[in-house]
Amino acid sequence: MKIAIIGGGVIGGGWASRFLLNGHDVFVFDPDKEAEKKMFSMLSNAKRSLPSLYDYKLPKEGKLVFCSNLLEAVKDAEWIQESVPERLDIKISVFSEIQKSCKKNAIIASSTSGFKPSELNESSSRPEQILVCHPFNPVYLLPLVEVVPSKKTEEIIKNKCINILNLIGMKPLLIRKEIDAHIADRLIEAIWRESLWLVHDDIATTSEVDDAMRYAMGLRYAMMGVFEHMRLAGGQEGMRHFLSHFGPCLKWPWTKLMDVPDLTDDFIEKIASQSDIQSKGRSIQELERSRDDTLVGIIRALMKTDRGAGTTLNKHNKSISNAKISLNSLIETVRRQIPQTWTDYNGHMNESNYLEVCSQATDKFMELIGMDVNYVQLTKESFFTVETHIRHLNEINEGKIIIVKTQVLEGSGKKLRLFHHIQNEEGEIIASGEHMLIHVDLKTRSSSLPNKNIKEKIEKLALEHSSLDWPKGAGDSIGSNQ
Amino acid sequence: MKIAIIGGGVIGGGWASRFLLNGHDVFVFDPDKEAEKKMFSMLSNAKRSLPSLYDYKLPKEGKLVFCSNLLEAVKDAEWIQESVPERLDIKISVFSEIQKSCKKNAIIASSTSGFKPSELNESSSRPEQILVCHPFNPVYLLPLVEVVPSKKTEEIIKNKCINILNLIGMKPLLIRKEIDAHIADRLIEAIWRESLWLVHDDIATTSEVDDAMRYAMGLRYAMMGVFEHMRLAGGQEGMRHFLSHFGPCLKWPWTKLMDVPDLTDDFIEKIASQSDIQSKGRSIQELERSRDDTLVGIIRALMKTDRGAGTTLNKHNKSISNAKISLNSLIETVRRQIPQTWTDYNGHMNESNYLEVCSQATDKFMELIGMDVNYVQLTKESFFTVETHIRHLNEINEGKIIIVKTQVLEGSGKKLRLFHHIQNEEGEIIASGEHMLIHVDLKTRSSSLPNKNIKEKIEKLALEHSSLDWPKGAGDSIGSNQ
Repeated sequence: MKIAIIGGGVIGGGWASRFLLNGHDVFVFDPDKEAEKKMFSMLSNAKRSLPSLYDYKLPKEGKLVFCSNLLEAVKDAEWIQESVPERLDIKISVFSEIQKSCKKNAIIASSTSGFKPSELNESSSRPEQILVCHPFNPVYLLPLVEVVPSKKTEEIIKNKCINILNLIGMKPLLIRKEIDAHIADRLIEAIWRESLWLVHDDIATTSEVDDAMRYAMGLRYAMMGVFEHMRLAGGQEGMRHFLSHFGPCLKWPWTKLMDVPDLTDDFIEKIASQSDIQSKGRSIQELERSRDDTLVGIIRALMKTDRGAGTTLNKHNKSISNAKISLNSLIETVRRQIPQTWTDYNGHMNESNYLEVCSQATDKFMELIGMDVNYVQLTKESFFTVETHIRHLNEINEGKIIIVKTQVLEGSGKKLRLFHHIQNEEGEIIASGEHMLIHVDLKTRSSSLPNKNIKEKIEKLALEHSSLDWPKGAGDSIGSNQ
Repeated sequence: MKIAIIGGGVIGGGWASRFLLNGHDVFVFDPDKEAEKKMFSMLSNAKRSLPSLYDYKLPKEGKLVFCSNLLEAVKDAEWIQESVPERLDIKISVFSEIQKSCKKNAIIASSTSGFKPSELNESSSRPEQILVCHPFNPVYLLPLVEVVPSKKTEEIIKNKCINILNLIGMKPLLIRKEIDAHIADRLIEAIWRESLWLVHDDIATTSEVDDAMRYAMGLRYAMMGVFEHMRLAGGQEGMRHFLSHFGPCLKWPWTKLMDVPDLTDDFIEKIASQSDIQSKGRSIQELERSRDDTLVGIIRALMKTDRGAGTTLNKHNKSISNAKISLNSLIETVRRQIPQTWTDYNGHMNESNYLEVCSQATDKFMELIGMDVNYVQLTKESFFTVETHIRHLNEINEGKIIIVKTQVLEGSGKKLRLFHHIQNEEGEIIASGEHMLIHVDLKTRSSSLPNKNIKEKIEKLALEHSSLDWPKGAGDSIGSNQ
């Protein structure tokens, strides 16, 4: 799919990265001479972080083309994302330029934080293809997109737009009623105003305001948002109790939001210099990398409990898995990029992540023979690992692709013996994992025979794989090769 | 240390749990007949979550005593935490009761969300021992405490208070200037007001407001807070650029905060019923458990990159480690509670976490012989694991204590062979991990001899441990026992 990115700053660059890493071709137009350099810097950040959210390799990266004019970028594009400066007149004239050369059924989406779509497409000759798709920085990691159609936006455009956002792993939030700044930025604005007052009135420094957010509410907002959290604050009686109990506080003088402090030079200097101290001289690039590493960790934590952004990622993750069973050759059970969160103080993938990779390979093998999570929960039967032997032959670093090919060494009765060949993208074997598993009845927690169907599948695979070479290191004990 | 908890609801119960799990004795007074039941329910939540944040076992739990009167609770207590309903007259009379029987140098801390300490201690005979310590729900997991002294609060009380909060793993944020609702609740209040308007005006449902928070800002606030995030939004030029660029938006109509919607019965019903739909009939208990599991995951992610709450936890974690080297017996290298995040779909600790435990044991062993992270970074020398053999003998579930005792099987030249005996609290061996490690020069990434000092330590240990029994399973290969 051809994507046009008009305006390649922090937001446009984020959009471009997300589309590229999901396999789409991206054509960028930005008159800024620095745009190309900035875009590559952002793309390099994105490449080390977005794939870290997935247990499978993302599709082959799309091609990135810098265009010398707008026409070249938007011609034949399916999706045109406008991220030019936040001025209504500029945006309207850009739309008019776009519509001179773009397809009539292309999506024209604006990244505006504040304008309503009806303000944007008011004077357009084809208002039906214009809507707002407001993302959040870093666009390549944060899933939220506020999708705001105007009354004139075609239903088919809106639906196509939501489909495509789902396909690139985002969370489209349809805003049903136009309003200045949509929803999320109104919440941000509220916090921002109050924060400015706190610093303005010398109640707190920027760092203290940030701590007040990071050490309490910030931890909850990632999973619960505003209302569900308040529901819990009401105790067992929930939201009604909370509102009747704490509602009256709303009338207390707990905010100065009726007004906005003037951004005088002195006040700007005060905030900026406090902010400098807080960041301890770390560069924007360092802060961005630390931010991205942490976001990856937080989103992975949410994936584990299937909350918030974790739910979106779990769905998208599943949709890109494409392992198949191979009868007479090794089965590819893992192909993924090494997340930066797997690096240890020796500067390479930590040993425990090798077993995590083996565990993923075993889970995928189970899924391929029909024993996935649902099967286990339904039948109360599963395989338990009883023994593991891992050999490390070479190192592997973050950002590299790791591939596991699985061989059935033995499969009869209650026993299943798997050998995972762990290799890098060049085909070099960097490690191996050998595992003895025993079939278990989860009700009695003791060993048992698998059902006929599963048993036959395993035996057939074991028979076919017996014609393959016996893997080097299989059956060895520790120290036998040192 | 004796702790008195006056008022044992959601907040008082959270305080009690945190003090108990950090080894202090807690005396509770609450006239509510349900208080005891509620407290045990909260404590059971806390017991499965707080220890999950640690790689070491927390101190032996303190004793919990329910008192029939206030006098009994506060007598001889070092810390008295007041968490009674949010009414100034009630709080003032409780303080007066407390001061009739408490120690003169005890800390009397109020959990108030809104009142200033000078309002609380105005009429007190000993105002110097009273201050605000405002925590956040769940108190046993969220580290933030706003510490607000009044002008009359003694310096020594304030400092003692901050020390104790650090000791129980919290993050004291000293508020230097009294203000209604301190800092964090003013930010919450701002978001809450805007959220209420969005639902009131039918722009969004409670669930849509929550999604707008959870899928974007919520992910960032856990690590960056308000200002540091805005700094990044300014691109390479940082905060000054951001303020000059986006400052003008503050004057735009992006908020309705000047006013508060009336909490009519209809409006309360609207919010409460939307909130019901959103929670899909999940009980408060279910929501709390899911919240806690997710918070553990998020805080653990922050520990990995040492951001926000992760920094607090890393420090506290380190402070409770107490492994020692044993020359002529096995070395205890791990003692910890199994986090709930380690449970897999088979209902027990996942296989990859066994290697995580072994890896922790190996790291601790390295630390004990003087090769900690600092050593590695300084000397560019380290040990790499080249081979691992894990045997599973029994299962272990979340919440249980797991202990690793480490034996040196071989230690000469470049080689180090460790055997980790993994056992439960009853002393039963549930698994073992055998590891061959090779000393490596990180500059050349090839094997090398350790320096003399390290080499001697290892050889001495290997010699002493050679008098211990050869462990069952050591040197075995896969399948040799099946």
